Amino acid sequence: MLFHVRMDVHLPHTMPEAEAAELKRVEKAKAQALQAEGKWRHLWRIAGQYSNVSIFDVADVDELHALVSTLPLFPFMTIQVMPLCRHPSSIHQDDR
Amino acid sequence: MLFHVRMDVHLPHTMPEAEAAELKRVEKAKAQALQAEGKWRHLWRIAGQYSNVSIFDVADVDELHALVSTLPLFPFMTIQVMPLCRHPSSIHQDDR
Amino acid sequence: MLFHVRMDVHLPHTMPEAEAAELKRVEKAKAQALQAEGKWRHLWRIAGQYSNVSIFDVADVDELHALVSTLPLFPFMTIQVMPLCRHPSSIHQDDR
Amino acid sequence: MLFHVRMDVHLPHTMPEAEAAELKRVEKAKAQALQAEGKWRHLWRIAGQYSNVSIFDVADVDELHALVSTLPLFPFMTIQVMPLCRHPSSIHQDDR
Amino acid sequence: MLFHVRMDVHLPHTMPEAEAAELKRVEKAKAQALQAEGKWRHLWRIAGQYSNVSIFDVADVDELHALVSTLPLFPFMTIQVMPLCRHPSSIHQDDR
Amino acid sequence: MLFHVRMDVHLPHTMPEAEAAELKRVEKAKAQALQAEGKWRHLWRIAGQYSNVSIFDVADVDELHALVSTLPLFPFMTIQVMPLCRHPSSIHQDDR
Amino acid sequence: MLFHVRMDVHLPHTMPEAEAAELKRVEKAKAQALQAEGKWRHLWRIAGQYSNVSIFDVADVDELHALVSTLPLFPFMTIQVMPLCRHPSSIHQDDR
Amino acid sequence: MLFHVRMDVHLPHTMPEAEAAELKRVEKAKAQALQAEGKWRHLWRIAGQYSNVSIFDVADVDELHALVSTLPLFPFMTIQVMPLCRHPSSIHQDDR
Amino acid sequence: MLFHVRMDVHLPHTMPEAEAAELKRVEKAKAQALQAEGKWRHLWRIAGQYSNVSIFDVADVDELHALVSTLPLFPFMTIQVMPLCRHPSSIHQDDR
Amino acid sequence: MLFHVRMDVHLPHTMPEAEAAELKRVEKAKAQALQAEGKWRHLWRIAGQYSNVSIFDVADVDELHALVSTLPLFPFMTIQVMPLCRHPSSIHQDDR
Repeated sequence: MLFHVRMDVHLPHTMPEAEAAELKRVEKAKAQALQAEGKWRHLWRIAGQYSNVSIFDVADVDELHALVSTLPLFPFMTIQVMPLCRHPSSIHQDDR
Repeated sequence: MLFHVRMDVHLPHTMPEAEAAELKRVEKAKAQALQAEGKWRHLWRIAGQYSNVSIFDVADVDELHALVSTLPLFPFMTIQVMPLCRHPSSIHQDDR
Repeated sequence: MLFHVRMDVHLPHTMPEAEAAELKRVEKAKAQALQAEGKWRHLWRIAGQYSNVSIFDVADVDELHALVSTLPLFPFMTIQVMPLCRHPSSIHQDDR
Repeated sequence: MLFHVRMDVHLPHTMPEAEAAELKRVEKAKAQALQAEGKWRHLWRIAGQYSNVSIFDVADVDELHALVSTLPLFPFMTIQVMPLCRHPSSIHQDDR
Repeated sequence: MLFHVRMDVHLPHTMPEAEAAELKRVEKAKAQALQAEGKWRHLWRIAGQYSNVSIFDVADVDELHALVSTLPLFPFMTIQVMPLCRHPSSIHQDDR
Repeated sequence: MLFHVRMDVHLPHTMPEAEAAELKRVEKAKAQALQAEGKWRHLWRIAGQYSNVSIFDVADVDELHALVSTLPLFPFMTIQVMPLCRHPSSIHQDDR
Repeated sequence: MLFHVRMDVHLPHTMPEAEAAELKRVEKAKAQALQAEGKWRHLWRIAGQYSNVSIFDVADVDELHALVSTLPLFPFMTIQVMPLCRHPSSIHQDDR
Repeated sequence: MLFHVRMDVHLPHTMPEAEAAELKRVEKAKAQALQAEGKWRHLWRIAGQYSNVSIFDVADVDELHALVSTLPLFPFMTIQVMPLCRHPSSIHQDDR
Repeated sequence: MLFHVRMDVHLPHTMPEAEAAELKRVEKAKAQALQAEGKWRHLWRIAGQYSNVSIFDVADVDELHALVSTLPLFPFMTIQVMPLCRHPSSIHQDDR
Repeated sequence: MLFHVRMDVHLPHTMPEAEAAELKRVEKAKAQALQAEGKWRHLWRIAGQYSNVSIFDVADVDELHALVSTLPLFPFMTIQVMPLCRHPSSIHQDDR
């Protein structure tokens, strides 16, 4: 099941640089593991923003929430979720 | 070059059904041709909406505009465009 | 899987009364059938609005879209969808 | 009487972790007590958000405010309230 | 129980004058009857707008919706409802 | 002359509790004095919010601003003002 | 008493040109009479918009509403009103 | 050339009172000097807000920016600028 | 003097095609004449929108309004104007 | 390829003045270097705002993001990007 997720990151300016770097390092590792598993199908940077557009491919809504809400940057992100489904004009039976 | 495009369709209620059906038929044919060419990489329906999220893969901004603005439903759509680029945490060199 | 759906109805003032009445009759029948099947778990009127808040209980996103987008009033509604999941403070294992 | 309440939680990043944990522990206990009493009929997590959608079932508006405004997280939440009533298409006489 | 209701009226410019006048006449009569009964406690015009701010005093949410949704101008109004309760700094036990 | 005033209070989380309590004590005393004088005609809590809806009855705009801007919580409030006038459907000559 | 009024005009495209011209002629005459009387102190065009910013100088809110709501273009305008008062840094006792 | 400028002031609650008082003192002196020169034609307080509506009368856009951006409170203000021009219904050739 | 102007065009779907074509032909001729004169310095299409971003270079605000408000498409456009000035980091004395 | 970029700067009031001055000095140097290279074609100040409107001329979206996201003020800016293309009414083949 596909979900479109937009994440906008707002790190507080007062966060020590080392703490921010560590957060980002763990976030990246987790994001890459989820991509390798096929749960996080696409991950794009929105040009000019500290933001991404992502496509998640999960078993259900609970899995989606479990994945997103345990990301290290979750407390510092504004997140919008849209459930996606097959478009009748798609040439793919299963576009991921 | 990837662009994230959201399209929300608003057909006027006064449009004769046959005219709407014909518009949608031509739109679908055009959308499928562009998908077959690889220009329209992804096309998803947003659940509960007469709307889609699409990923276009074009040579430049002019090509993007040429494709989108000549869609038969263009005069009846609200469209938002966001340029995308590679995310540093992506495991793909070229995620499309 | 639960989805929170808000529907705001806007019938054009120019629609003949008989047509509106027929639309509403069919809508009601369909809404009641879906409730009887357990797909449309809750249906509440928002006080002072021609709007409802609904909880759908469906197998997946595609089923949600299929149900909502074939409602007779669909072309006349603004619809917002939010995927729901179990809240860690809920006393129910499966709150529907 | 039913009220639809959406709560979005924003804990300040500077709050010590122990203080946050204690706040959440008391909030959870209170939320569960209110659910057990039947005042807090439904409590769902909105996927991808530190937010919930809740249905309160109270005697009147004063009781609603008394319950919500004394939640431990109240000073850290943005709250929206919508009064609900029976929908004419509901198959339930008393849908809670 | 008190509810704060704001109503913004938008009559279509194409409505025949006689029809608009008749609608307003019946609306006024109904509004005055509800005021006389004490259900519609206050009714103020917002300066410069075809809008009002009203205070309704009803037994419950269902009564509020029944009153508001059967106003003749209901199909032509945008309506916002806020439940009110006693303010701890009010000098009145029962401010209506 | 009547003015509709909505006040939303946002006390900074870092304000010492004693300071907040003192501010609220003085605010309450001032609000009650103004009610006793008849300048602050109505004061209602909006359910679920740290907000109020108030009706002020003052000689002119300058008096309104003088009263509101010297409230102890003024620096911590978002305030919206709407001038009100007699509604042609009101059954009162002078609805306050 | 001064009020800041912004008016945005939206004439329906279907209005016959002669009707629009007549409306504007009467509107202009009325606006000029009110300026001559000193009730409509300033009237400026907002560049690039079919909109104006105006300063009204009236005895009270009722007079403001009476003037604005009887303008011939009133049914075709979106209007925003803000009550103004003396600014403590103004060098004028009575800035109009 | 006239410009309509709205300024909303937001002083941080953590600013020492003496610093705020000094800022306001210098701001007031500067505002009064500009009024005396005729550059700052009108300065009104918006009732209930720590905000003003101003009319600037300057030689060009660069002068406007130079004046506004060097105000002592500039870093603490949200500012909106609208260029104004003569309204065809104005009875003044040069309404300032 | 430079002004940044964004124009969004919304032609009514009911406008006869010949009328729309004629409007666009005259609009184009006028836009090109103003560009040739140097008044309309830049004219760009926003990708995916029936909208443009333009830079006007005019003697004053009145000239800006005179040019924009007499464009044939003016009644069908939503227009936003922002006055521009030299940026202190620009390498040009006079960037047009 | 042209992109329209709006940048709004929000430096935290708690940033030491020397740090802010150094940030701005490096930002200016970088902005001027990019202008000299022709990547940053136009840079205008929006009057009355700590904001700019810029036109970037880059090889592709990745270059745009690389340039913008490495500006020293990037963490302190709200940024909006719009892809531009040739307008059919432009008199220039290549308007930059």
